[in-house]
Amino acid sequence: MDITDIDTPALLIDLDIVARNLKAAQDYADAHGLRLRPHVKTHKLPRFAREQMALGAVGITCQKLGEAEAMADGGISDIFLPYNILGPRKLDRLAALHDRVTLSVTADSAVTLQGYAARFTDAAHPLPVLVECDTGAKRCGVQTADEALALARIIAAAPGLRFGGLMAYPPRGGLAQTQDWLAGAIALLTRNNLPPEVISIGGTPDMARAAEITCATEQRPGTYIYNDRMQMAWGHGTVADCAQTVLATVVSRPTPDRAILDAGSKALAADLAGAPGHGLIVEYPQAVIHALSEEHGHVDLSACTARPEIGEVVHVIPNHACVVSNLFDEAHLMRGDKVEEVARITSRGKLT
Amino acid sequence: MDITDIDTPALLIDLDIVARNLKAAQDYADAHGLRLRPHVKTHKLPRFAREQMALGAVGITCQKLGEAEAMADGGISDIFLPYNILGPRKLDRLAALHDRVTLSVTADSAVTLQGYAARFTDAAHPLPVLVECDTGAKRCGVQTADEALALARIIAAAPGLRFGGLMAYPPRGGLAQTQDWLAGAIALLTRNNLPPEVISIGGTPDMARAAEITCATEQRPGTYIYNDRMQMAWGHGTVADCAQTVLATVVSRPTPDRAILDAGSKALAADLAGAPGHGLIVEYPQAVIHALSEEHGHVDLSACTARPEIGEVVHVIPNHACVVSNLFDEAHLMRGDKVEEVARITSRGKLT
Repeated sequence: MDITDIDTPALLIDLDIVARNLKAAQDYADAHGLRLRPHVKTHKLPRFAREQMALGAVGITCQKLGEAEAMADGGISDIFLPYNILGPRKLDRLAALHDRVTLSVTADSAVTLQGYAARFTDAAHPLPVLVECDTGAKRCGVQTADEALALARIIAAAPGLRFGGLMAYPPRGGLAQTQDWLAGAIALLTRNNLPPEVISIGGTPDMARAAEITCATEQRPGTYIYNDRMQMAWGHGTVADCAQTVLATVVSRPTPDRAILDAGSKALAADLAGAPGHGLIVEYPQAVIHALSEEHGHVDLSACTARPEIGEVVHVIPNHACVVSNLFDEAHLMRGDKVEEVARITSRGKLT
Repeated sequence: MDITDIDTPALLIDLDIVARNLKAAQDYADAHGLRLRPHVKTHKLPRFAREQMALGAVGITCQKLGEAEAMADGGISDIFLPYNILGPRKLDRLAALHDRVTLSVTADSAVTLQGYAARFTDAAHPLPVLVECDTGAKRCGVQTADEALALARIIAAAPGLRFGGLMAYPPRGGLAQTQDWLAGAIALLTRNNLPPEVISIGGTPDMARAAEITCATEQRPGTYIYNDRMQMAWGHGTVADCAQTVLATVVSRPTPDRAILDAGSKALAADLAGAPGHGLIVEYPQAVIHALSEEHGHVDLSACTARPEIGEVVHVIPNHACVVSNLFDEAHLMRGDKVEEVARITSRGKLT
C-alpha cells in the first residue's frame, strides 16, 4: 500500500521524522541530566510510547484516566497523570490502574487530597502525589510555596499516599519565573523536612531550554514528536521537522483564486497558530487556508503562481498536532510514500 | 441511571427539547410548502434521523460518504450527499450506496461529472445529480447561471445520470441574493428545456425565513435539533431551546476568580461563536470560559456572585453543536435528569 491508495482526508505520520524528533529530545535530556517523561497526548499511540521508553524515557505522561488505561493496555508500565482526579468512579479506576502500573498523580487542593487519602490506604503500596504549582500559566496549581507546603503535609500525613514532589506547566517564555517559583518552594519544603524528590516541568516550546530550570529533574514535552504550525510560529522547528500531515484532496476550484479541500474543521481542527490560516499546504506554501467549515477547507490561492487542479492531493501541516490526532480513528504510518502500518489511535476520544 | 451516575465530561442531549425543536421545524416547512431534508451532521445519530423522517422529513442530508453509510445502516432510505465525490474508491462506495438507498449528489465541475458519468451508466437506475451554486457563501459552487446550465447539460447527456436540480448553501443573511441568483438560473435552465425539479437550500440560522426564497422546494437545516451558542448569538433560539450540553466538573479553584473545568478543547472544541468565550455555563451565566487547553476549561468568575466549588458539576452549552457531537463516542439521551439511553454516535469521525 502506498500513498495513492489512501482515501482522503487521512492522517499521515512520517516515521523517519518521528525517529529524528524522538532521538533529539532524548539526547537533550540525557546531555542535561533531565529525565524525559513524554506527554503522549500528541500521538495517542502505544507504539510511539514504547519507542519513547526504548530510547530512554522514564515513563509517560497522560492527562486523562482513559488515555492512561489505553497506554497500560499497550504495555506502558510507568504513567504520570498530572490531573486532579475527583469522584468515586474515577478514584476506583485510578486504584485499578495503580495495581497495574507504576502510577503517580497530582493535586492542587485539599479537596482532591481528601479523595485520594480516603481511597488509597495501603501504606505498603502508597500512591505518589505531586503538588501542582501555578508558576504563571494561570491554569491549575497552588499559588504560593506556603500552599504547596500545606498540601505536601497533608500528603505526607496520609498513610496510603506518598509526597512525590512538585509539578508545573511553565508558561511559554516563563523559564526564569518558573525556576524562581520552584526554587523558593523547594527551599521551604526542605526546611520543613519534605524535600521534593521529583520536580517535573512540561511543554515542547521551551523544551530546548528546559535545563535553564536548574531545579527540574524531569520534563514532559508532547508535541515535539510531530511538531506543528504552532510550534513553527513559536520558533521551534521547520517544515522538515513536522511529522504529521493531513492528506487532502482539492474537490472544487470555483474561481481562479479559490480552492476547496475535503479537509475542514473535522480534520484540521479550528485551533489557531499565530500564523495566518488553518494549516500549511506543503505543496503550495503561498496558499492560505483562510476558513474552515466542518467538511471543507477554504483556500485562497491569490498569492500562488502554481495552482492545484481538482482531484489533486496535497499534504497539510495542521496548526495543532495534538487535537488533530484526536479527530482521526487511524494514523497512516509512512516510510516515504509507503504505508508501513495503519495504526488505530487507541487513546483517541478518551475524555474521562 | 441518572445524571449523578454520569462521569464527566459527558455529552448530554435533552430529549424534550429535541422533540420541540424537531416539531417546530417540520411545522414551519409544512406551513410553507417546503420539503424538509435535515442535515444529520449535528446529531450523527440514526435514532434522531428516524425521528426526523417520522415527523415528515423527505430524507436526510449527509456531507460525507461514511456518514451516509452509517445512516443507511441505521435504516435511513433517502440520502442527499451535497458534495463533489471524486476518485475511484469513493465512487465505488457511492455506487454501493446507490444500490441500497434513494441517493442524490451534487457537482460543481465537469471534472466531478466525468467521474460520475464513467461510474454510473445504468439508464434504468440513474444517479440524480444536482448542480451546486455559490450564491454568496464563497465555498463550493458554480459562479454563474451559465455555468449551471453547462453542467446541467453534461448531466442530462449522460445516460446513467439524471439532472436533479440546484443546490445552494445560502450565506447567513443572504436570502434575497440567493433568491435572485437561483431565480435567474431557473429561468435560464427552463428556457433550455432543463427545468430543475429540486431547489435545495440549507442552513439553520435563516431557517425560519427560508420561505423568503420562494423558488426553494426543500431546506436542509442541521443545528436546529440542538441549537448552540452560535445560533443564540445570531438571534436563533434561547437557552431553553438548547438540547445539547457538556456535563463538566470543576476540578480546581486556584484563586477566588478562577475555576478550571475538566472539559477543554477535546470536549468543547475551539470554534468561536460571536459571543465571549468557549461555551455558556448554564448554572453560572456570568462566568466566562475565556480559554481552553485540551483537557481544561479556564473559567473567569470575576463577574459571578455565586461561585462553584471543587467537585461541583455544571452544564455547558457549547459554541458549536455539530463539532462537539464529533468529539464524543456516546451521547447521554436525557429525560429531565434521567438517562433514557446511552447512544453510540455511529456517524462520529466519518471523514471520508
